[in-house]
Amino acid sequence: VQLAERLLEGDVRGLARAMSLVEAGAPEAAAILRATYPRTGSALVIGVTGAPGSGKSSLVDRLVAAYRGGGGRVGVVAVDPSSAFSGGAILGDRVRMQNHATDADVFIRSMATRGQLGGLARATNDVVDLLDAARYDTILVETVGVGQDEVEIVRTADVVLVVLVPGMGDDIQAIKAGILEIADLFVINKADREGADRLHAELDSMLALDPQRARPPILHTVAVRDTGIGQLKLAIDEWLRRAGSKRRAERRRERAGARLDSLLQAKLVQRVVERLLSGAAHAELVERIADRRIDPYTAVEALLERLEVR
Amino acid sequence: VQLAERLLEGDVRGLARAMSLVEAGAPEAAAILRATYPRTGSALVIGVTGAPGSGKSSLVDRLVAAYRGGGGRVGVVAVDPSSAFSGGAILGDRVRMQNHATDADVFIRSMATRGQLGGLARATNDVVDLLDAARYDTILVETVGVGQDEVEIVRTADVVLVVLVPGMGDDIQAIKAGILEIADLFVINKADREGADRLHAELDSMLALDPQRARPPILHTVAVRDTGIGQLKLAIDEWLRRAGSKRRAERRRERAGARLDSLLQAKLVQRVVERLLSGAAHAELVERIADRRIDPYTAVEALLERLEVR
Repeated sequence: VQLAERLLEGDVRGLARAMSLVEAGAPEAAAILRATYPRTGSALVIGVTGAPGSGKSSLVDRLVAAYRGGGGRVGVVAVDPSSAFSGGAILGDRVRMQNHATDADVFIRSMATRGQLGGLARATNDVVDLLDAARYDTILVETVGVGQDEVEIVRTADVVLVVLVPGMGDDIQAIKAGILEIADLFVINKADREGADRLHAELDSMLALDPQRARPPILHTVAVRDTGIGQLKLAIDEWLRRAGSKRRAERRRERAGARLDSLLQAKLVQRVVERLLSGAAHAELVERIADRRIDPYTAVEALLERLEVR
Repeated sequence: VQLAERLLEGDVRGLARAMSLVEAGAPEAAAILRATYPRTGSALVIGVTGAPGSGKSSLVDRLVAAYRGGGGRVGVVAVDPSSAFSGGAILGDRVRMQNHATDADVFIRSMATRGQLGGLARATNDVVDLLDAARYDTILVETVGVGQDEVEIVRTADVVLVVLVPGMGDDIQAIKAGILEIADLFVINKADREGADRLHAELDSMLALDPQRARPPILHTVAVRDTGIGQLKLAIDEWLRRAGSKRRAERRRERAGARLDSLLQAKLVQRVVERLLSGAAHAELVERIADRRIDPYTAVEALLERLEVR
């Protein structure tokens, strides 16, 4: 909790240390988050998602510069679900973002949690909270837009950008479709490539299929050449103004709900599973299931009967 | 359970219906799975994963033909995590795989579960079990190799193929890295493209970094031209022979363990969360969290104190 103090006072190393504890799910994590939570709620959280190869990282890099240009402090949380099995952020120490390495008012964190059960989403939200409490004004959360967990992470940001790119294969276009619904704004990146206008038109006609829904603006950027970033920032500001405080409060309620649920689920499992099933009993039960002597449904049923809610 | 009978007798429509119930998490699902589970365990489960655009679908299509050629019945479970928000299998009814549409001994199922908490992994395992119980000799499980859930799904297959493709962008190469560890065999698909040999060499040198580990074979295919599929099948057979029954039993134990854990977790949450927190109490707590009057950690702590394990 001393760490929480340091973080709130703006100590960057304290912040980094707190993040590591939170990401690792260390015992101290809950105390840190408890102490910092009341100081959260002022940052603008921008979710950025898109298929691999859409140039999200460069775009986020440019957005950092744009938001820094406005004088505010900027945090970045880059979520890298690909590392589920490597245990480390592969893209973590990547070359990109080095532009900001010497800027004390930019804090970049790569996440790659091994944990299951929404562990990645939980840890990401916690890290966003820490940045928020440490007075970063704008927080960019970047995920690869594939996988439920990853989509879940950005879904409850204050504003969600979905990054597309012209001329990807069919497989990738299909993945896109899964994240269309969460976009507040679309960004066609690498828009100097052939097919940008066609993609724009396709997107338009797809969006027209759902007349109920407010039509998200579609912006064109070429992040690596810093083209269109200013307009994108303006469009984000405009979207936030139009969406209004009511919408923002709604998103924050959604985020609070998602956090409560995922935390409750994670802690529930953590606490209860080991009490229901010791190591030896677990191994024996697994053996019996593997041998088809019992089916997992019956086994779980029997275990859950031992639970009581007061 | 009548449905279970029909399925066990080889009724394809009964099988499809059972799958739908299982995927939807319908109340009847547990009974069906209980009744069919003792009849599972004979199928060979092949996991196939790789980045979007690696041509997994064509490869699986060709493998279906290869395994059908051996006379056995073949099931395919195509997992499409991209649809987390669309609620339907976007790639589900895709044109591919139509080759086998008229073959009664090939059953293809696309999955796209909305559920959280390993819901996709659970449902996929259940569907594999149903195919197994319905006497499909070989079951191919195809996932996009991004996201923890998706990797988890294939990890415990009897044999895991990781599909790579020459000349992808950096972003995609990085994603690959996350799934390197689960590969029993590597397949370089679209191997007629430039860069196949370089990719092979890169892979070789990456694998050399871990001398502890048995070196997975690297196969070259061009699935759309049906090139290299026979060799791939032979390599799979050879790998299984070498891995031996002990290894296979180990994988099956892993799979049983993963199933027990995920089911226990899912059921635990389903049962307990609603008993701990009624709708109105939930809404109120969310409001208080959103307003920073309470932090989610303290809230969850208080809830969990009401739980008892007998």
